[in-house]
Amino acid sequence: MNLPLQKIRETKPLVHHITNWVTIYDCANMTRAFGALPVMAHAPQEAADMTGISSALVLNIGTLTEELINAMLISAKAANEKSVPVVLDAVGVGATPFRDEMATKILDSVRIDIIKGNYSEIAKLAGENAQTRGVEATAIDADPKQVAKEFARTRSCVVVMTGKEDIISDGERTFVVKNGHESMGLIVGTGCMAASVIGSFAAVNADYCVAAKDALCYFGIAGEQAAEKSAGPGTFKMYFYDEAFNLSDEKVQSMMNFEEC
Amino acid sequence: MNLPLQKIRETKPLVHHITNWVTIYDCANMTRAFGALPVMAHAPQEAADMTGISSALVLNIGTLTEELINAMLISAKAANEKSVPVVLDAVGVGATPFRDEMATKILDSVRIDIIKGNYSEIAKLAGENAQTRGVEATAIDADPKQVAKEFARTRSCVVVMTGKEDIISDGERTFVVKNGHESMGLIVGTGCMAASVIGSFAAVNADYCVAAKDALCYFGIAGEQAAEKSAGPGTFKMYFYDEAFNLSDEKVQSMMNFEEC
Amino acid sequence: MNLPLQKIRETKPLVHHITNWVTIYDCANMTRAFGALPVMAHAPQEAADMTGISSALVLNIGTLTEELINAMLISAKAANEKSVPVVLDAVGVGATPFRDEMATKILDSVRIDIIKGNYSEIAKLAGENAQTRGVEATAIDADPKQVAKEFARTRSCVVVMTGKEDIISDGERTFVVKNGHESMGLIVGTGCMAASVIGSFAAVNADYCVAAKDALCYFGIAGEQAAEKSAGPGTFKMYFYDEAFNLSDEKVQSMMNFEEC
Repeated sequence: MNLPLQKIRETKPLVHHITNWVTIYDCANMTRAFGALPVMAHAPQEAADMTGISSALVLNIGTLTEELINAMLISAKAANEKSVPVVLDAVGVGATPFRDEMATKILDSVRIDIIKGNYSEIAKLAGENAQTRGVEATAIDADPKQVAKEFARTRSCVVVMTGKEDIISDGERTFVVKNGHESMGLIVGTGCMAASVIGSFAAVNADYCVAAKDALCYFGIAGEQAAEKSAGPGTFKMYFYDEAFNLSDEKVQSMMNFEEC
Repeated sequence: MNLPLQKIRETKPLVHHITNWVTIYDCANMTRAFGALPVMAHAPQEAADMTGISSALVLNIGTLTEELINAMLISAKAANEKSVPVVLDAVGVGATPFRDEMATKILDSVRIDIIKGNYSEIAKLAGENAQTRGVEATAIDADPKQVAKEFARTRSCVVVMTGKEDIISDGERTFVVKNGHESMGLIVGTGCMAASVIGSFAAVNADYCVAAKDALCYFGIAGEQAAEKSAGPGTFKMYFYDEAFNLSDEKVQSMMNFEEC
Repeated sequence: MNLPLQKIRETKPLVHHITNWVTIYDCANMTRAFGALPVMAHAPQEAADMTGISSALVLNIGTLTEELINAMLISAKAANEKSVPVVLDAVGVGATPFRDEMATKILDSVRIDIIKGNYSEIAKLAGENAQTRGVEATAIDADPKQVAKEFARTRSCVVVMTGKEDIISDGERTFVVKNGHESMGLIVGTGCMAASVIGSFAAVNADYCVAAKDALCYFGIAGEQAAEKSAGPGTFKMYFYDEAFNLSDEKVQSMMNFEEC
């Protein structure tokens, strides 16, 4: 039996984030709710050292600057040397040329193990015709499963496209995760938190494709359960943390809703 | 019938923020609760591009630095060129000379459509004798309605003074909004969130004076309803989001409490 | 009778923070829940001015950069000149050499009145053999009470070590505070908020050792009461704010759980 949550809670992996200033607290707090230990550190003088003692690195370009991108590259190089998994959340790619350039610069400079974004962010990164409204996905022309699969092959990594259905592909295996609830879209930061959870699962499972799939199932189930109790984004967010914290591998087994295609 | 909320929810305007690091999440999340799409981006390389695809720009100097002010000027210029409404939340003006200088620099460099602050922030900006305790208003000598009206004329913009009663003036029309609840003052960030809501309403109503008045009525009503259920700042904040999300134009009509004077 | 909370609520001291980007909102909001007024300002051009009108300064190196450390030094010098109490929260010392160096630089450059950290952070600062996992304490070899006492003497200040039991020492008096609840460790930011509360109490009590002890008792009691009602980190955090807000000096008297040793 696959027991990722138990493994996270027993080993308490340190998950280093270099992330955005909007959802930084929620990235940290959701990481903690799942049982991992978040740490945020972006000074270039310590970025590599902090990554060096961590079990996963989560990069998020939501409020990128040149300095922050520089810190991300330093950390990612340290992660690559030590085989620490690196997640890149490509927030807002497709909204401005600067985001497109910086995300591509990261992909071309270091090894990213898991590239995550919404449909239009990933499509844009993959060279498709796509635009993002700020950080909000817009419809894309291409078949998202095909985009994920091909982009995973091109970049030799795991690609995660989040949306009503989440698509995870390593170029060979492609999973579609149907867990989750529309209430998750009513609060800011759900996507960022998902990247933190993916990082936490990748910290304890070297099969990053399965780790990302599991992470999104578990995260989505917490969202489903919170949605049942909530009356709006305020109550939803509170219960989201409670439900994530109260998940167990056993409880989740019967609720996981995904298929391989 | 005036249906601003319906219009926001149908058009989902993108509201670009360059704001402070304390309440940045709450600015984003309250924008979302009202139905608009928040985006935060302060890199000088993309600030103008992000404003260019947005329907409103909200500037907040709560944790200003020179770099951030520079990004604000870049974005505001882009907004001015495209007639995107610009809201300036003059947080902490009257507390330090640096804030006073930077706020005045913004006002002298670009067109601000709506200047918002508490009583002492606006009084100070308007040249009155006033001091702000950090970001907290202190009593002012002058008549606030008169200050708002005259400052609006001097700067040819809409002036919003928030407090127990909110005053909104474009120099011709002056509204006093009495919606709201003292519980709103028990949490940090209410003023910042109000600016985000004003930006969201201005994104769908070219009459910025009425947009600001409507925004503060709606926002205050959400606060009133949340206060009824809450037992302190923790529960209040949670319900505040729920109530904002559950507002409707119809529901609000009978509760709006303002007068024109 | 010692009535620190009443004094905070009557005088509403301004508590200037230069802090980290993860928990900055919670530092501000918990300060407010206790009745003090938070202000966050890190621009070098205004840091000293803001400290100059404040009654306490709280420094937190959670997401330190060189620029931020510089702002901290400017503010601390202004505080020292005006005898404003300075709290340093040594977040993550023992995790990277950069943090160790910067924390030591602060201690060597300005007078810090209250140094706060978890067991491994303080042990590392005090020259003991200790490591911190990101921002998480690890076990230390030395006796924590002895470490606190001696380090307080070396630095001529109050030392606060937070953990299952909190230790507060000025080198002469040493208090052990047993208030608090393990749920406080389930959310991110509890330690940072504790520093804000210590700053708020130090703003109204020149005996900083007693102020820190009182602060941790009151803060711990709020945590205990919130824990009783909560079902996870989401509900806990909400109730934590409510309970902090609803504390009174009278209510707290019978619940304070500390000893002098």
